[in-house]
Amino acid sequence: MTSGKRILLGHGSGGKLMHELIEQVFAPVLLASNGAVLNDAAVFQACGARLAMTTDSFVVDPIFFPGGDIGEMAVYGTVNDLAVSGARPLFLSAAFILEEGLPLEDLRRIVASMKRACDRAGVAMVTGDTKVVNRGKGDKVFVNTTGIGAIERQIEISADRARPGDKVLLSGAIGAHGVAIMLAREDLDFERPICSDTAPLNGLVEAMLGASLDIHCMRDLTRGGLASALNEIALSSRVGFRIREDRIPIQDEVKGACEILGLDPLHVANEGKLVAVVGPEQAEKILASMQKNACGKEAALIGEVVKDHPGRVVMKTGVGGLRIVDMLAGAQLPRIC
Amino acid sequence: MTSGKRILLGHGSGGKLMHELIEQVFAPVLLASNGAVLNDAAVFQACGARLAMTTDSFVVDPIFFPGGDIGEMAVYGTVNDLAVSGARPLFLSAAFILEEGLPLEDLRRIVASMKRACDRAGVAMVTGDTKVVNRGKGDKVFVNTTGIGAIERQIEISADRARPGDKVLLSGAIGAHGVAIMLAREDLDFERPICSDTAPLNGLVEAMLGASLDIHCMRDLTRGGLASALNEIALSSRVGFRIREDRIPIQDEVKGACEILGLDPLHVANEGKLVAVVGPEQAEKILASMQKNACGKEAALIGEVVKDHPGRVVMKTGVGGLRIVDMLAGAQLPRIC
Repeated sequence: MTSGKRILLGHGSGGKLMHELIEQVFAPVLLASNGAVLNDAAVFQACGARLAMTTDSFVVDPIFFPGGDIGEMAVYGTVNDLAVSGARPLFLSAAFILEEGLPLEDLRRIVASMKRACDRAGVAMVTGDTKVVNRGKGDKVFVNTTGIGAIERQIEISADRARPGDKVLLSGAIGAHGVAIMLAREDLDFERPICSDTAPLNGLVEAMLGASLDIHCMRDLTRGGLASALNEIALSSRVGFRIREDRIPIQDEVKGACEILGLDPLHVANEGKLVAVVGPEQAEKILASMQKNACGKEAALIGEVVKDHPGRVVMKTGVGGLRIVDMLAGAQLPRIC
Repeated sequence: MTSGKRILLGHGSGGKLMHELIEQVFAPVLLASNGAVLNDAAVFQACGARLAMTTDSFVVDPIFFPGGDIGEMAVYGTVNDLAVSGARPLFLSAAFILEEGLPLEDLRRIVASMKRACDRAGVAMVTGDTKVVNRGKGDKVFVNTTGIGAIERQIEISADRARPGDKVLLSGAIGAHGVAIMLAREDLDFERPICSDTAPLNGLVEAMLGASLDIHCMRDLTRGGLASALNEIALSSRVGFRIREDRIPIQDEVKGACEILGLDPLHVANEGKLVAVVGPEQAEKILASMQKNACGKEAALIGEVVKDHPGRVVMKTGVGGLRIVDMLAGAQLPRIC
């Protein structure tokens, strides 16, 4: 491994180091399914049904932040990974690793928030686990959620299905979650508060699939942001992307905060946004269905799939130049989710 | 909560404090299913199939110990929770929380051990997740595994199904895992090394169900040991237990170590043992099927269910007295799994 012999914070940030870790350490040994494609959920047949399964541990710091908390994120994060695989989220498990000394009131608040999130997303929490570690061997609370969902339609959504000519749809403004966490962590105040965008995307995906089944790839834009999601698809599908900076919605406050903090909004994590690669004939219809949904009001067509420069994402910048949008190399924002 | 306003190590030890936490904080808000019964896995219908789902985070310290490691335990722990629910384990997820600075070699060793464990148990690891936390905010590695299995037989195995007259079967000698961890942690050497009993129990359960479906309750004896498992069943089923100390197998070395360390073997965690409450007519047949299996060679009939003293477990001691076997009150052995 090029990155040395110990785990670095960057191994958890959704960028190049994490992909190396998955490709070199985990995938060759562990993943039983089609190890060639890194999707947000595994899809398999069980008992005659087509099911999806996904897991995520949440270690976000701080655990409460403007616009959400670790509990809500843990529910929506897993719901969204199922949704972007085309599955209807059904059941979730929740496993807590608590640090000795955590105020019970904080735990109650997190649990209540998870309950509200489950109700909003329409999923059932069916089983759980609790462990406690000594003070100084954890950090307040880590939450794992694992979810299973049913794929009831005849669809194949996978990162290796992008084809030249396909259109790229983005569901809304990017960067709010990562910037909100960063500001909360550094205790920085801006004129207008920036809130995390954490939200369940299963309703949006349901609306999209209702408009057309011609959706080839879908990703929610968490660690590594839009840049990592598009790069992953480009690599898996062996295609190139051409996107336009002026089409990518970003709130002014987020843009300003990114400039001050030295962050690239394309690399910043989101918790309620997705990107979809869809067949060109159906793109406008799917886009319209997104814009009618509360989680897709600002949805935009931001670019297309090309056969040039396979594995590369190229962006036409606001000033008219071309820029290669790379995967995040190190740890831009550790513990963002 | 009687135990104060902050999380204590004892909240994670499988005893009374943990049950209070589940009953007062988690269950009222979160668990969608029959919250009254604490089973090792949730059972539900999905897409026409009867499925079981269970989750467990592993925070064992040390991560490598005589007889096993955190990776192997994480696979078998979840396999066993599915098996004792009567489900055939099918698919597992694995989520890692790594501490910055963990040697990659340790991670590779754990992952290889998980692979061997999956192969031995006949399950497929289908999806995963990795997070990294700053040095001093975790402890080397925590592993969550979540599993789903299929219940293909017409059985109802649940902690509330014990009936007076039922027999209690124990699959083998208790206490080895907890003692092995304790000795490894304290760097104590005994004449003969004590190894963890970590093992997959799905083959044993398959053999038992092949002998008879008249199995009412089943538990693997992890945190809180045999005492907690029987107390949980006694409370859920509103029955009493009478067990005989002279029937409970314990290795001499484990017994000796427990005396020196001041541990009660009934409270010590195991990672490859189960207790089953079965109909009296089928008890001998099921016991014989266990003794033929490699994981049940020392299986024994250790007692029965009575209608007296509901909610209580009473043991006839080796010297002929009667002793109430209570649930573990505090933290006998933190981070045992």
